[in-house]
Amino acid sequence: MVAKIIDGKVVADRIRAEIASSVADYTEKTGYAPGLGVVLVGDDPASAMYVRMKRRACESVGMVSKAEILPASATQEEVENIVRQYNADPNIHGILVQLPMPDHIDEEAVLNLISIEKDVDGIHPINVGMLGMRGREPSFTPATPTGSMILIEETGVQIEGKQAVVVGRSNIVGLPISLMLMNANATVTTCHSRTKDLQGYLKNADIVVAAIGRAEFIKGEWLKEGAIVIDVGSNSVDDPTAKKGYRYVGDVEFESAKDVAGYITKVPGGVGPMTITILLQNTIKAAWNLIEA
Amino acid sequence: MVAKIIDGKVVADRIRAEIASSVADYTEKTGYAPGLGVVLVGDDPASAMYVRMKRRACESVGMVSKAEILPASATQEEVENIVRQYNADPNIHGILVQLPMPDHIDEEAVLNLISIEKDVDGIHPINVGMLGMRGREPSFTPATPTGSMILIEETGVQIEGKQAVVVGRSNIVGLPISLMLMNANATVTTCHSRTKDLQGYLKNADIVVAAIGRAEFIKGEWLKEGAIVIDVGSNSVDDPTAKKGYRYVGDVEFESAKDVAGYITKVPGGVGPMTITILLQNTIKAAWNLIEA
Repeated sequence: MVAKIIDGKVVADRIRAEIASSVADYTEKTGYAPGLGVVLVGDDPASAMYVRMKRRACESVGMVSKAEILPASATQEEVENIVRQYNADPNIHGILVQLPMPDHIDEEAVLNLISIEKDVDGIHPINVGMLGMRGREPSFTPATPTGSMILIEETGVQIEGKQAVVVGRSNIVGLPISLMLMNANATVTTCHSRTKDLQGYLKNADIVVAAIGRAEFIKGEWLKEGAIVIDVGSNSVDDPTAKKGYRYVGDVEFESAKDVAGYITKVPGGVGPMTITILLQNTIKAAWNLIEA
Repeated sequence: MVAKIIDGKVVADRIRAEIASSVADYTEKTGYAPGLGVVLVGDDPASAMYVRMKRRACESVGMVSKAEILPASATQEEVENIVRQYNADPNIHGILVQLPMPDHIDEEAVLNLISIEKDVDGIHPINVGMLGMRGREPSFTPATPTGSMILIEETGVQIEGKQAVVVGRSNIVGLPISLMLMNANATVTTCHSRTKDLQGYLKNADIVVAAIGRAEFIKGEWLKEGAIVIDVGSNSVDDPTAKKGYRYVGDVEFESAKDVAGYITKVPGGVGPMTITILLQNTIKAAWNLIEA
């Protein structure tokens, strides 16, 4: 079979239109636009690019974004003070700390400072705990796994009762999407670097989420015929034919996987466009929460 | 093969001796004993029995326990006030809210009130989140899954790389032990009521944790030869030959499982004795944390 492509761009655009409409309502009602506060420490070019993308995305839906960019030599105190300012700022509804931060900064301490009401990244431990626990609802769920779940739902295939395999167990993707799939009544196996017989698990998986950061690691012949394959990876590989000399590929070998999977996302154009979209969605939610509280 | 019995009573007694020694040190150093504060609402006989068992266990290691027993008609405010008193009481180092509470009480609101430093049950969402997240350490881990992990370690079998199947996904057992096994580098599948092909998962499982509350549900022939089987279930079944007319059995059919498993816990005498022991261990830890902070 040839897999149907789950087009993250199309889904993201649809959700962004809804967000823009909600932002317009909010701005009309309150007289001010919802705001996202970003903290960036150091001059990593990729991080700087992500911050610019987030600013443009905010503007595209009518939100305000503010970025505090500190030098790599910034102290823990200076970074924490930015978070404290954002916590106290009534015009900032969501706070995003761009990771990774320089080695001398205690990331955990910075992240734990973010007010729960403004944790639009959904990675405060209390939000992760609530995400996992039955009968609890986190204030926010993290952007990439939430976007991935929406793409799975986009197929129309019922998740309940399905065998799901998550490859990777990071705090920002593998762990939370394992919990989300469990909440959706899938039977979830979380695989990682110490897993033996990954292929045995994949061969039975109706849903595969790949989030390991290894270029084209998962091959088509490892997959179950008809599986839903969500590729969270974004790895740059050399490509002399590309203008920049490199291109991005996922954690799944798309060319072989598309002939086996039932549904598959591409890289780029799959999960990527969803991530910033969910960040925007969480920020407008935070803004509404504030005035409805 | 005939399985080796993992004797929870023996392991618990060994840990309790260590706790008693630590409590004696603490009491000598501070002039007062560590204290556990228990809240019980209503007159459920099983809950009342658990509370008595906890008091006796505290006394057996030299700790003080205090139980506030409210009538089933108690208001939310009255229950919350007990937790607030315990939070403020310097002689109470650990707080245990005996569940379930009557339907009109909002359990979540009560549990969320418990000071993180005194959450010896380890079920505050922030502790659950920290338990799941890599690079984070919860203040406390919940008693039953922690005790179950110790019994698995007692076998001497390396957990890393093993296939583990957790049957059940409750907040107090299934979810946290899934996270703990993942942290120990097992590949974990969490099965539940919507899982199809439970037997297929069990047949490949090197480690099985059964926590579903269904008497003798898991049969020996479903297991992999040599598996480690931890039976968290404790279900009362009619037994006319027993003095009380009933006896307790686990979620695993012991008679058939013992001929297939490599290691197995019994019910009673397996996980049960560990649960209160870990509660005591968390309480002495909380007490030490307080004076070392």
